[in-house]
Amino acid sequence: MKIHILAVGSELLTPFFRDTDSLYLTQRLNDLGLEVSAKVTIGDESENLQAAVRDSWRAADLTFVTGGLGPTDDDRTREAVAEVLGRPLRFEENLLRAIEERFRRRNKIMPPANRKQAEVIEGAIVLSNAAGTAPGQWIEAEGGKIIVLLPGPPAELQAMCEAHVWPRLSACGRSFLARKVLKTAGLTESELESLISGLYPRDPERRLTVLASPGQIEMHLAAFSIRSAAEAEARVEALAEHLQTRVGEPVFSDDGADLEEVVGRLLRARGETVAVAESCTGGLLCRRLTLVPGSSAYFLEGFVTYGNRAKIEHLGVPADILESHGSVSSETAAAMAAGVRRTARSDYGLAVTGIAGPSGGTVEKPVGLAYLALVDRDSVLVERGFFLGDRARIQLQSSQQALDLLRRRLISRPVS
Amino acid sequence: MKIHILAVGSELLTPFFRDTDSLYLTQRLNDLGLEVSAKVTIGDESENLQAAVRDSWRAADLTFVTGGLGPTDDDRTREAVAEVLGRPLRFEENLLRAIEERFRRRNKIMPPANRKQAEVIEGAIVLSNAAGTAPGQWIEAEGGKIIVLLPGPPAELQAMCEAHVWPRLSACGRSFLARKVLKTAGLTESELESLISGLYPRDPERRLTVLASPGQIEMHLAAFSIRSAAEAEARVEALAEHLQTRVGEPVFSDDGADLEEVVGRLLRARGETVAVAESCTGGLLCRRLTLVPGSSAYFLEGFVTYGNRAKIEHLGVPADILESHGSVSSETAAAMAAGVRRTARSDYGLAVTGIAGPSGGTVEKPVGLAYLALVDRDSVLVERGFFLGDRARIQLQSSQQALDLLRRRLISRPVS
Repeated sequence: MKIHILAVGSELLTPFFRDTDSLYLTQRLNDLGLEVSAKVTIGDESENLQAAVRDSWRAADLTFVTGGLGPTDDDRTREAVAEVLGRPLRFEENLLRAIEERFRRRNKIMPPANRKQAEVIEGAIVLSNAAGTAPGQWIEAEGGKIIVLLPGPPAELQAMCEAHVWPRLSACGRSFLARKVLKTAGLTESELESLISGLYPRDPERRLTVLASPGQIEMHLAAFSIRSAAEAEARVEALAEHLQTRVGEPVFSDDGADLEEVVGRLLRARGETVAVAESCTGGLLCRRLTLVPGSSAYFLEGFVTYGNRAKIEHLGVPADILESHGSVSSETAAAMAAGVRRTARSDYGLAVTGIAGPSGGTVEKPVGLAYLALVDRDSVLVERGFFLGDRARIQLQSSQQALDLLRRRLISRPVS
Repeated sequence: MKIHILAVGSELLTPFFRDTDSLYLTQRLNDLGLEVSAKVTIGDESENLQAAVRDSWRAADLTFVTGGLGPTDDDRTREAVAEVLGRPLRFEENLLRAIEERFRRRNKIMPPANRKQAEVIEGAIVLSNAAGTAPGQWIEAEGGKIIVLLPGPPAELQAMCEAHVWPRLSACGRSFLARKVLKTAGLTESELESLISGLYPRDPERRLTVLASPGQIEMHLAAFSIRSAAEAEARVEALAEHLQTRVGEPVFSDDGADLEEVVGRLLRARGETVAVAESCTGGLLCRRLTLVPGSSAYFLEGFVTYGNRAKIEHLGVPADILESHGSVSSETAAAMAAGVRRTARSDYGLAVTGIAGPSGGTVEKPVGLAYLALVDRDSVLVERGFFLGDRARIQLQSSQQALDLLRRRLISRPVS
């Protein structure tokens, strides 16, 4: 089956293009055992757009058209596809009502421009949009060819695909596939590679890909079976077990959960609480912990204390520690963690202090240096981290090591 | 002039694709006043590759084909382009000698496979490769159409373009281009659309594209001139001025800066400081403010106060306000902002309290409701926001409205 992805939008032809949608589509199609034959990016001009739709329609069995479903003048995907297929656009009253209702819920009135989002190509199946106003469309035509129109914003496209597109495609009946992602913290890509080098599958039924991002290296596993889902599942499980045994403690998740979710589950299961004090990460550590729904059950409070005065007044860090060791030191990190635990009356106090840059570094304490501290009733743990990259990357990696410090403590400490 | 970029290589159709070459080409073409009409990514299979070359050759005046010039079996760009143009491939002795010499300099013997890199399409100008073995080719054909074959590795492609391709292209003398991005907060896409509907340029020399993300709608402007860069610049400026006048205060940036940067610049220019108290945004507001390098000059500290106790103890929110109005209320937001301003001794106190969900909502106070408060010496401002979407999206939009509340105050308040 030949598959094309056609991304629509003049902004995608600028140097600021992010290929989010097509990478997501490729990933999920691969999961279904399907491969992409071509990707095309095209601007909003009707003539170019129509030519591109026509080329893909001719060459491919399945075409995804992303973007150009918005309410504005330069959103022309519906018209172009209707033209190429030679089918009229029909206005659907009930779609219009759904869009109006979405505005009403926000206490707003739908502007007239949004009316055209209720236009549907004749014979299309409408795919509802849980995260925006533009509905998608699934069109089957002569010779079994399929063309699918999807909204461009990644959150809308992904929700729509998960709810409607993949279930429809897998119902077409291909081979069975099972996937698993093992996420690790505290290892570099090459450290992980050397641990697992002998475990890359040699058979075509299984696949292992290593993906690296700052502070987090992931192993993406896939296994196929032409017989049953259970067989595919068993194959992926066997591979996952080998990898997990080999890599050990750095594997923090095998079900897609991120580090902050894993930490949240552990705290919740133990009935314990955490409070946070951070300087160089500037709120990111709190942000990540509270991104998890229900985190108010275990996250008590957080302090973003940039200056020394704030550290002294709110966290009770002794002034002489700041004076003799400096604000970026293991002693200050430990005092911040102890202080926030005391003031918040939490089971754990977690703290980060460091230099995220680009300025503020010295020879002894360069940009990228961070101290992470965790205090509980029984112990004080302090780690030193040193991270490369720009400000955002240093902040991300510091927060990752802090969360992982808490995770390692939570899995090793007996429940009291 | 219509320009296509055709990237060749099956690895580019996996989820791990990085679009480096096409972004570089786009950037440098834009610098020459040229725009890309379409980008296509295609695998190594001869049939698909030929079809893609044929489509671009038909549609475009100038086509860049990147990749597929290597020595291996699946490098088929030369053959495909020769086939489409109906021209033979000629073997060039002197090219072979240059490739052999390159191997010799590294004390290696050229493998026989590399011989085919010395094959040139009849009539092509050979572009030498300073960083690798595969030479590029520049082919001019009937009707002034041009097709350029470039090696895939970014370092080789870029060196070749800088040395040979851009000098050749600018010698052809095309048009000049200028760009501008206006970012807005506080408007929906359709609200912005109805404000500017009459301002979409009708002439081909200017272009306007609207891009929406949660809490931020952007207008991307472009203008061309065949005469001079100054004329293109003047055209984009005139369009920007019209749009800015029409849209007004919601435009917060015309130079690419994000909202947190704009707020940071305003605070810095006024020599003033801010402190933050947040509940439903869980640290995101602090995170955004401190993502900006140098933010420690104006960001004093932040409190993430989930529970009522933290609000009372650290921010001095009166217990009876929490009791009679609830923690999500305009009264509590105002007390949090006043409290954090007092304890941090900052010029501005900025606070958010709301319900990010997915649980915790009621009929009177549904998920997505947020109160934003800003206190300074002269005034207390409170706004109510109501946002749709998942937890992360509600948090993002709440933080955006809070930052924008501060921005609007900063631009309207006289410097004391």
